[in-house]
Amino acid sequence: MAELSGNVLVGQSGGPTAVINASVAGVVAEALNHACIEEIYGTVNGVLGILHENFVDLAAESQQTIRALRHTPGAALGTCRYKLKKQSDFERVLEVFKAHNIRYFFYAGGNDSQDTADKISKLAQQQGYELRVIGIPKTVDNDLAVTDHCPGYGSVIKALCTTVRELACDHGAMGQNDLVSIVEVMGRNAGWIAAGTSLARRRDQPNDPPHLIYLPEVAFSPEKFIADVQRVLKREKYCLVVVGEGLIDADGNYIAAAEAADAFGHAQLGGAGEYLRSLVEQHLPGVKARSSKPGIAQRAAAHAGSKTDADEAFLAGQAAVKAAVNGETDKMITLVRGDGDHYTCETGLAPLTDIANGVKKLPREWINEDGVSMNFQFARYATPLIQGEIAIPHDAGLPVFAHLDKVAVSRLLPPHEAT
Amino acid sequence: MAELSGNVLVGQSGGPTAVINASVAGVVAEALNHACIEEIYGTVNGVLGILHENFVDLAAESQQTIRALRHTPGAALGTCRYKLKKQSDFERVLEVFKAHNIRYFFYAGGNDSQDTADKISKLAQQQGYELRVIGIPKTVDNDLAVTDHCPGYGSVIKALCTTVRELACDHGAMGQNDLVSIVEVMGRNAGWIAAGTSLARRRDQPNDPPHLIYLPEVAFSPEKFIADVQRVLKREKYCLVVVGEGLIDADGNYIAAAEAADAFGHAQLGGAGEYLRSLVEQHLPGVKARSSKPGIAQRAAAHAGSKTDADEAFLAGQAAVKAAVNGETDKMITLVRGDGDHYTCETGLAPLTDIANGVKKLPREWINEDGVSMNFQFARYATPLIQGEIAIPHDAGLPVFAHLDKVAVSRLLPPHEAT
Repeated sequence: MAELSGNVLVGQSGGPTAVINASVAGVVAEALNHACIEEIYGTVNGVLGILHENFVDLAAESQQTIRALRHTPGAALGTCRYKLKKQSDFERVLEVFKAHNIRYFFYAGGNDSQDTADKISKLAQQQGYELRVIGIPKTVDNDLAVTDHCPGYGSVIKALCTTVRELACDHGAMGQNDLVSIVEVMGRNAGWIAAGTSLARRRDQPNDPPHLIYLPEVAFSPEKFIADVQRVLKREKYCLVVVGEGLIDADGNYIAAAEAADAFGHAQLGGAGEYLRSLVEQHLPGVKARSSKPGIAQRAAAHAGSKTDADEAFLAGQAAVKAAVNGETDKMITLVRGDGDHYTCETGLAPLTDIANGVKKLPREWINEDGVSMNFQFARYATPLIQGEIAIPHDAGLPVFAHLDKVAVSRLLPPHEAT
Repeated sequence: MAELSGNVLVGQSGGPTAVINASVAGVVAEALNHACIEEIYGTVNGVLGILHENFVDLAAESQQTIRALRHTPGAALGTCRYKLKKQSDFERVLEVFKAHNIRYFFYAGGNDSQDTADKISKLAQQQGYELRVIGIPKTVDNDLAVTDHCPGYGSVIKALCTTVRELACDHGAMGQNDLVSIVEVMGRNAGWIAAGTSLARRRDQPNDPPHLIYLPEVAFSPEKFIADVQRVLKREKYCLVVVGEGLIDADGNYIAAAEAADAFGHAQLGGAGEYLRSLVEQHLPGVKARSSKPGIAQRAAAHAGSKTDADEAFLAGQAAVKAAVNGETDKMITLVRGDGDHYTCETGLAPLTDIANGVKKLPREWINEDGVSMNFQFARYATPLIQGEIAIPHDAGLPVFAHLDKVAVSRLLPPHEAT
């Protein structure tokens, strides 16, 4: 494999997480180690930044800033949900890459983003432009194929488990067996996040909350829900319910779908928690129901995030650069769990085509027969992902996050047609 | 003042906070220093525990457990919203106190709870039963009269400010000037909590979120709201709105009141955030609106709480015992801010009658003329309250909180009539 000299471009795509910036930090830190890499650019707002030649010079950022990215939530470079469709868009991407001698392209995102990376890679190959494209996994939804788990997932479930434990302290204070507390969590198509809250239970305390977990994988029945709640309230002072936003009924319809759909045609969901609250109020007179919805804050909760997760996100960024320099392309970094009893995690590589638009379902055999709790296999899978705390510096009582200087890279081409 | 020998009873009342257990820890720690105090009991579920003679022996808890109360949210003894009304209830309280030789009663709670403590104190005086009653302030709402601020407030606003900073990192990632993110926070009658989120702004970054804060103190106008949002979206990539749950319109009606009312006749609120979201969707086509509602989790968020707040809550518990041993009664501990430029806080005492059912309003002169932001006077008031972080031990990746053994104190009386 001949050494390929040129510039790096790294981008972020889709919904931000608590640790997607850690992957960018990993790319930058590793890129500095390789003489074949000349410039390290970031694209502002993912593929939109490529179309509009809107790049920033990441090598110009202070080391302090790059280090702080390891604990900064959100997407510091900006992200997008824009999907390249037109052939002219793809041609433009290649034109911009050629103008800036981009030879290494790293794209952190979910399955739609990996699909985009794959198409860019394929077009470069067709045109004989030597480009190495490596995807970096990212999604709180934990639903990417092949990889054992996704950076972002450990942090979101750790933050939610902390909330569940704190709610347990709060709700336990009233001794009246008449409170149903409903927490609506993210998860469009899969219950990975809702399932993850099961880790909040203490060892040997099977009656700890969450008492009931409703997953998109299990068709929702209002009758069973009310019976489940009644069963818990007979036993416990309160019933803590976790519900995934993507809950569906027996006909496969979303329980609480709104009209709008996003740019990828995904239904925009909301309201599953409020729906369950209304069921309790209708069917269980005298029982108080409260719903809460952490919303976007859950995926951004770096202050309660997982060090394991942040470290693996950084590792994935480093691994992407190493793989590309070693000649790999059109692949995504995967996280590969070791076989031993003690959790270990290395990176691997999978073809982007295997990732693009694939979805990893929560295994049915990890859900207990009651349909509202997870078994030991899930706990064994997920527990290692929430270990360790992210140390965030505070100033004047509040966390301090990185803000990029975003030194602009000079444009070399005429503007792109309006997108 | 003759030394009064006897037993201590401490109770918790009303909605739990992140630091009300720290006050109990302060009572226990201080009570151990005084030879005149024999037993240290806790009442389970506040006055309900008194009526039912449901006491636990706090001296039997391990020192480890009492220390862990300093970082444990919720109300470890249990709390209640039961309001003593019948004369027979009050008589029962005194009967139980006499049976257990309770001579020191410490009650941590808000204004309703201080009212209860005051009535118990008055009845004991009438009956010539020597009893020293000292209230300990507690409420996330920060609305108790006389005291400079209330334990619980610093922690809830610190946790919400952390969330706002993290949301800023997340929302800033999309560059499209079309997102309105609405966070509904607690605060039934006063905007103290909503106002507190203004501290999330970094120094010299006046355009940092929260961009708009809607307070119960300012009559809500849908037209102004839409104009406010449009103004922010012209300038910023997104508009982060904080809204207090108790928002009222120009006629003084709650914007989003539900039918139910709690035991004290307070309207149970909810939905101000969803209401604002619907306004955006109706009036600003093409703008995405998202609402989130941390709900009860905000008042329980010890993991993101304020060390200053937790330390002051502990101090208030200690001060209550010291005051009572020194002969004070029928008073509440207040927090008194020093005059100097450097924040200091001591405890004082105020008559319970001055506290009971009083409400401290957010000063109008701390709200800017735009009605949606706070001025430097508020920042000077609130900034010291969020300083320092609470160190919470973690096990297997999650925070570990105290759980009382609750060794029951033997009942000495026949059961109370059903309550």
